[in-house]
Parts: sequence; C-alpha cells; structure tokens
Amino acid sequence: MINEVYKNMLGGKSVIRELSEYATERGRKIGYENVFDYSLGNPSVPCPQSYTDEIIRMHQEDNPMDIHGYSPSLGLPGVRQTVAESLNRRFGMDYETKHIFMTSGAAGALSHAFRCVTRPGDEILTFAPFFPEYTPYVNLSGAALRVVPADTKNFQINFQAFEEMLTDKVMAVLVNTPNNPSGAVYSTETIRQLADILYAKQKEFGHDIFLISDEPYREIVFAGADAPYVSRFYDNTISCYSFSKSLSLPGERIGYVAVNPRATDADLIAVMCSQISRGIGHNCPSSSVQLAMARVIDETSDLSVYETNMNLLYNALSRLGFEVVKPGGTFYIFPRALEEDANAFCMKARDYDLILVPSDNFGVPGFFRMAYCIDTEKVERSIPVLERFVREVYGR
Amino acid sequence: MINEVYKNMLGGKSVIRELSEYATERGRKIGYENVFDYSLGNPSVPCPQSYTDEIIRMHQEDNPMDIHGYSPSLGLPGVRQTVAESLNRRFGMDYETKHIFMTSGAAGALSHAFRCVTRPGDEILTFAPFFPEYTPYVNLSGAALRVVPADTKNFQINFQAFEEMLTDKVMAVLVNTPNNPSGAVYSTETIRQLADILYAKQKEFGHDIFLISDEPYREIVFAGADAPYVSRFYDNTISCYSFSKSLSLPGERIGYVAVNPRATDADLIAVMCSQISRGIGHNCPSSSVQLAMARVIDETSDLSVYETNMNLLYNALSRLGFEVVKPGGTFYIFPRALEEDANAFCMKARDYDLILVPSDNFGVPGFFRMAYCIDTEKVERSIPVLERFVREVYGR
Repeated sequence: MINEVYKNMLGGKSVIRELSEYATERGRKIGYENVFDYSLGNPSVPCPQSYTDEIIRMHQEDNPMDIHGYSPSLGLPGVRQTVAESLNRRFGMDYETKHIFMTSGAAGALSHAFRCVTRPGDEILTFAPFFPEYTPYVNLSGAALRVVPADTKNFQINFQAFEEMLTDKVMAVLVNTPNNPSGAVYSTETIRQLADILYAKQKEFGHDIFLISDEPYREIVFAGADAPYVSRFYDNTISCYSFSKSLSLPGERIGYVAVNPRATDADLIAVMCSQISRGIGHNCPSSSVQLAMARVIDETSDLSVYETNMNLLYNALSRLGFEVVKPGGTFYIFPRALEEDANAFCMKARDYDLILVPSDNFGVPGFFRMAYCIDTEKVERSIPVLERFVREVYGR
Repeated sequence: MINEVYKNMLGGKSVIRELSEYATERGRKIGYENVFDYSLGNPSVPCPQSYTDEIIRMHQEDNPMDIHGYSPSLGLPGVRQTVAESLNRRFGMDYETKHIFMTSGAAGALSHAFRCVTRPGDEILTFAPFFPEYTPYVNLSGAALRVVPADTKNFQINFQAFEEMLTDKVMAVLVNTPNNPSGAVYSTETIRQLADILYAKQKEFGHDIFLISDEPYREIVFAGADAPYVSRFYDNTISCYSFSKSLSLPGERIGYVAVNPRATDADLIAVMCSQISRGIGHNCPSSSVQLAMARVIDETSDLSVYETNMNLLYNALSRLGFEVVKPGGTFYIFPRALEEDANAFCMKARDYDLILVPSDNFGVPGFFRMAYCIDTEKVERSIPVLERFVREVYGR
C-alpha cells in the first residue's frame, strides 16, 4: 500500500509555484513581457563562459572514462580538495579534504546535515522569515522545525524570542544569510551574539548544538553589506552551499557540506554523510559537473544585475511609502504590505499583472516577497505599474 | 550530538571496496597490468560518441539558461516523455509522462520506490544472491529487508522458500534481473510464476504487494538469454533504472522510476516521489545530463566486450572443474568456490594477484564473484594464472 505520509503531502501545493504557473498562463494571453513576474527565485544571468568552455574542452579532450566514472560517495577527492582550498583562501579557514562532502545542491547538503546532528524527535530552530521548503526538509528527516518569530525592524535575529525557545531539546539551529526572503545579511554583531548564546547553552545543557548555515546566496552581497563567514564564529558549524546562484547552474544540482574542522567529531561528519546517502539515494552530483565547477570555483556569473535591480526597487518602494528593509544581498526584497492581509494585497496586485508572493508561507504575516532576478528593463517598466496600483487601490 | 545510527555504520566497510583498494595498492607495487582485478562493477567501455557530441553541441549552441535551469523535481517533462516513449516502443508498454520520475541513478530510484510503497516496519523481500547495498538502502527507509535463500542450481527463484516468507507483513518484493552478482537472468517462466504468486497473495492478504524491479543491467543480455521486461507480467510493478551501465555514465548519476500504468495509484506514485525528494535532498539528476541522455536514449556503449569476456571465463572455469551457472547477462559470473569457506578461497587467490570477491556479502556462502568489466586481453592473461592457482592450491 502506498505510504500515506507522502500521499498526504500532495495536497500542499506551493504558493510560489502556483503564482509562477499563473504568471506563465497569463503571459500566454497578454504576452510574457507584460507580466511582471516577481515570483520565482531563478537566476536570470547565464553561467560564466569559462564553465561552458571547460565542459566543452573536457568532453573534447579528456578520456570519457575519467569524466564519467563513479565518484566516491563523498565526491571526487580532487574536487573536495579544491573546495577546501577555495574556502580557506577566501575566508581564512583551515578545511581539509576530509571536511568536505559534495552534494546535490543545498537541498542535498541540508538533508545530510540535519540527519547527521539530530535524531528523530530532536528540535531544530530557525528564524522567520524562512525558506518554506525547510519544513518538509526537516520533517522528513524525523526532527521537528520550530520557528523563532522575526525581528521585523531589520530582519536580524529576535534574540529574546530565540533564547526563550532554545531549550535542551534543540540540537541544531538553522540560519540562512544572506536571507531568502528578506534579503537581509546577518551582521558580524548578530552572528557573534548568536555564537555567544550557543556556546553558553551548550555548556548549560551539556550537549552540542550545531549551527547549520544555509549559504546559497553567499556570493550575492551588495555594496556596504557586512557579510561575515558564519563558520568563523562558532566551531560546531556545518556550512551548506550550492553553486545554483553563484554560477547560475540550478539544474546541475551541485553543492557541498563543509564541516568546521573544530566541530565535535569534525573528522566523522563528512563520512557519516556518505553513510546517510546510502539510505536516501546517492546524492553525489554529476562527475562531469564536479570537475568543471572545480576549474571555475572562484568565479561567478555577472551578478551585478541583482544589485542594480535591488536599488531600483528599493528606491521606488521607499518613495511610494512602503516600509522596507534595504537588502544586503540575494535577489529578494521583502516590504510590508499596504494592508494587514498580505494575501489580499498580493491578489489585488495581480490585477495589475504584478506577481508578488505573500509572506505567510515564510513565517511572517503582512509582508510580501519580490524576486528581482529578472531583466532590469522589466524592473524599470514595472515601477510605474506599481505606482498606479498603489495610487488606485490604496490612494497613495 | 551526532546521530549514532550513521556513526555506527562507519565500521562496516565494504568488502568489495577493501579488495579494490588492495588491488590498487598492489598495482602500485608490481604494476597494475599484473593485478587481475575482478572486484569492481565499473563499466570498462566509454560512453557512446553520440553522447559526447551532444553535450558539446548543446554547450556550444544552446542558451545556458535552458541547459542549466531548474528541472522540476519530477525531471524535465520532455525528458520524461522521451523515457516513456522509449519504453513503450521497446517493451510494448503504455507509459505516459506522469509515470516517469527522473532520479540520481538506480540508488535514487530505489530509495524513492521503497518509501512510496512501504511504511516503517513493513517488510521487503529480496532473493539471494543480492547486491549488498540493498541492506542500507532498505534499512534507512525504515522498512526491513528479508532475504529469500538462493536456488544455487540456476539462480532463478527458490519459490518454496519465497512462499514461506511471503507473509502479510510483506509490502514489496525486490528483484534484480539481470542479476548482480550471479549474472542470471530471470526467465519468462520465473517471472510469470512470481507474478502468479503475488497476485494470489494480494488477494489473500487484501492489500497491494509491489514488485520493485532493479534493472541497471537490462541492456547487458547475452545471446540466447530469455530476458523479458518484468513490468509486463505484474501490474503493481515499479521499474528502477540507471544509465550507468548502458551508456557507461556511472558518475553522471542518471536513472528513473517507471510506474506501471495499471498499478494501484499509478497516477500518484511519481508525484509522491517528488514529495519524498523534498525530504531526502533533491535527487533530480543534472539538467544537462538529462537533456543529452534523452538524445541518445536508445543507444548503448559497445557492450560486446562483456559477452566476449563472459565466454572466455565461463569456458575456462568449466574446464577447470568449477561448478558455475552460465550468465545470461551483466558483467558478473558467480562460480562455487573450491572450498566451503569462500573468504579463505579468495584470500588464497589473492596470493596469485587474482582479486575475487567472496559471496558471503551477497547472501550466499561458498561462492565468489568475478566482475569481468575489464579488458579482454587481461581476462586472457588471467586464465593461465587461474589454472596455476587451482593446480597448486587445490591439486586440480
């Protein structure tokens, strides 16, 4: 008999996905250029030409048996070493190959990290607003996700609420900075305070509390943002990364887990991941993609469009009287809606072909997310429409 | 605290992996050409040139945003359709796109299939000899694997033992034909009898029993073998496939789940897989690999070397007095050892630089596996060594 757990999940369709499907449908009717689709967080710039060149060169020159051979379940050793060296060079860490586990994107990285450091029934804390997929990711690992309410002033951490929820059942804390959906980047001060609390609570409870740092937007940081490397501040940190945004390769499913060398059992965690992958279907990314990525690891796509778009939208939204925190990174902005019910607000915006995502799914009511990974030309054209919407519906 | 379940798995190193590492180490000392390494089931022929050409063409000509964009979690719709059409054309099935779920190889396919049709505590039956990784694959899904003893006469099914073990706790039966490690291919008669029993027991127990068919060796079938498509015989069949062997792309991690359109809830199973993948880390294969594979789906690598090698070894082993069933497919052969303790036998062979895998791990004592996915020239040179080993150690 089929498993009811997964069958019952079929009803819960993603709001983001539904809005994106609506936008596509609407685009078919009125022309896609007339739909201002801010729903989906898909990179809007191509991968670096160097990645494409490397894939072509490799397939032209190298032995197919070397390109397409089995990767050990931890990932190709040379690729893992390249990842470690890149992180050490860029962030002053001292990872070794044994601390790196190659994964099928950040989703794969998180699913391994959760299983490594929690047992069924343990709690994982995260902070609103948060990526809605964290809920199934955590639930299906057997742990329980609890969400600390947002600090809506600046989308840093609501430390009072955090300390109240940080009981001895909590085995891991999950952070996402730069943050989807708020665009906020945790400051050095925020991360330092978080680390101090975790160190104190580890001592008090007599057990480890791991910090799982989800970092797919690490490379998309804007001028002036203070964007420290999380793992430098807290030993028990597991960093989860994806090249989906930095190299614009979301479909290639490549990322990694990087275990802080000073974490408890640091030498075991990556090999434990390789045991976990035996149970959940081998998550290793494509061997050829691993090899090509390693050759361009310190490059990125031209990410400048995201900052251009952010500034256009931030200025327009501020001018129109929205309460909005200026994003420090990502390709999201998260203003407060002009009425309490964000769903109603977004439905009214839809009548203007502005596709905005209400915030309820992100664990905060009353806001909306705009994913501005679209052409700048379109952002520019959307601003007068936004103005008209705000004037006609809300009299501003 | 780190999870003891996975930590405790770290002790259990794979015998096959250890033997392969020994062979590599030994090769460094005496020259790799002097080590007859029959340990690992890695394809020994390159992927088709057409696959390489397609990857190059795609990266030269197509829009990177199309090649590397997010694939829906079920897989790219056009690719799923191509898989369905290929199976329909080749095996007279009537799959639709909705019955296909793209996976990270056969391991990914199996991990989804197990979770779809069992709940924690349910039993899955499989047949000795069997691929040892089935144990962690099943255990970590929460189900329990039970193994039906082998029919060592011909490595078809021991139906008497099967019927005794087929209680109402069994929710799925896992078959692997062509079989790793025996090389046996289940005949039409075997599959028909299996299906008859399953249909009768479904009726008796009043619940579905799914047949999970692991088919990575489906394309490696030798002259004269009767190799029917399993799903044609039993409606509740989920086929799990990998292109690792047929296209020699093991590192690319690409395969699929194909749900028989007449299975119970056939229209739900693939979408349930996409829910399962939210919990175990997105298993979708690389988008570019999906696209290139779909262009060469009905091709294979030049697989003829495996049959050549099989015949050389089968003839030599028979001549030397081994009890051995002639393989109908795969790149494995599974003779009875010349003493009861297969481990002792294989250790003695190792002194002749013959790397053979003892059968205990495959659920049958007293046999050994040879993976003959190596150059024919090396198989030829290994035969006099095998003769000398058998003569000197066993006086034959």
